[in-house]
Amino acid sequence: MSEAPTACVLIIGDEILSGRTQEANLKYFAARFAELGVRLKEARVIPDDADVIVGTLNTVRALYSYVITTGGIGPTHDDITTACVARAFGRSVVRHPGVVEKMTAYFGDRLNEARLKMAEIPDGPDVSLIESETTIAPGYRIENVYVLAGIPSIAHAMFEALAPQLERGAPMLWGNVGAAVREGDIAEGLTAIQEKFPSVAIGSYPSMRAGGFHTSIVARSTDAEAIGKVLAAVAALMRAQGCDPVRDT
Amino acid sequence: MSEAPTACVLIIGDEILSGRTQEANLKYFAARFAELGVRLKEARVIPDDADVIVGTLNTVRALYSYVITTGGIGPTHDDITTACVARAFGRSVVRHPGVVEKMTAYFGDRLNEARLKMAEIPDGPDVSLIESETTIAPGYRIENVYVLAGIPSIAHAMFEALAPQLERGAPMLWGNVGAAVREGDIAEGLTAIQEKFPSVAIGSYPSMRAGGFHTSIVARSTDAEAIGKVLAAVAALMRAQGCDPVRDT
Repeated sequence: MSEAPTACVLIIGDEILSGRTQEANLKYFAARFAELGVRLKEARVIPDDADVIVGTLNTVRALYSYVITTGGIGPTHDDITTACVARAFGRSVVRHPGVVEKMTAYFGDRLNEARLKMAEIPDGPDVSLIESETTIAPGYRIENVYVLAGIPSIAHAMFEALAPQLERGAPMLWGNVGAAVREGDIAEGLTAIQEKFPSVAIGSYPSMRAGGFHTSIVARSTDAEAIGKVLAAVAALMRAQGCDPVRDT
Repeated sequence: MSEAPTACVLIIGDEILSGRTQEANLKYFAARFAELGVRLKEARVIPDDADVIVGTLNTVRALYSYVITTGGIGPTHDDITTACVARAFGRSVVRHPGVVEKMTAYFGDRLNEARLKMAEIPDGPDVSLIESETTIAPGYRIENVYVLAGIPSIAHAMFEALAPQLERGAPMLWGNVGAAVREGDIAEGLTAIQEKFPSVAIGSYPSMRAGGFHTSIVARSTDAEAIGKVLAAVAALMRAQGCDPVRDT
């Protein structure tokens, strides 16, 4: 089997780094990439700073099969993503005639220079729009970079619009089992299970729940049968500690 | 005034990149850094992959005044952060005698090799513990890197334990005003306000609320008076659109 494609998410926005806004797109993208068989390798949150955006984009687009950016494609002065993407690719910025036409029909005499900024894309015959019913202002694709809005409902809809374009590897499957056990009591047994099943990534996630300690074990692999064997072995390990293993939600 | 110190948050964990877990520390750290006058410049989410952790840590610790890592310091096989931090600094890993003593008292005959892993820190007289009442297993500081647990309640407590050690710049203050207006209708006025007040970073955040479009304008600066002037100008801009500006929550 050929290697699965890889991806990086670039979250652009002072509002995340200032602590004002809870980031709300990464988990959605991550879960969808797993289903699509694309390996999400990294996410970076960067500020609304042109040099940082250009530099980071040029770094990550060379490292990964796909880059998804969110944020900074609106009409206001702090929306600088398109200017930065164009600069990163050495392109100029142009207004897309079809988007201008739609905006003219939609906004009428409320169409202004600020809104026309949302019709801007980097120049080039290879740049394609990412359209969604959630907004008149599109995202776009340039080479392996997909530029999306930051508002979660729009970002998620745009992700679904671009998803069919992605090459896919084997989907990353997962299963889990949890119990009211402390991780330190099953850690040595888990290590043995991990060594026996190297094709499965076994993660251990402790938490405090009503009633005390809880540990959730997650098994991730492209091999459903191996996941099943790992979870059975983990459940046996938990039972040996006197616990009743359950599938966590 | 000297430049404010900078920071990067390194979120280590497959559980975030697989889409299983909502990241839940960054917003807390970001808000606290702003209050402390430390400029959070970047956050990266990376997988439980030793080469990636070592490489990323060595990159970001050279770029920023402070690096905070979360995740990967528990007792299980997938907790590899300490081994990676030690490798990044060219140090060996040692067990901290004081932590071993506390664990011995606490765990009694349930103390095992897995749990003793949580007493491990990189070697060196400059490495100091970050202790918290939320856990017996400490985080630690090595040079400008602070290594914290991933569980939010523990990570936040450890952050408060290390916060007094940080050098501080002027706190980043902020204020905001919002209204039931579309950002495209105030974008040109906002640009003029931004140009008039270059010491204030003005961010525009649109959303859909019950009743329709909403735009929240956030003004961030170390200068409280300038923030007040910006918000007054923005409120006037919103009123000119027939809207009733309010402070958003």
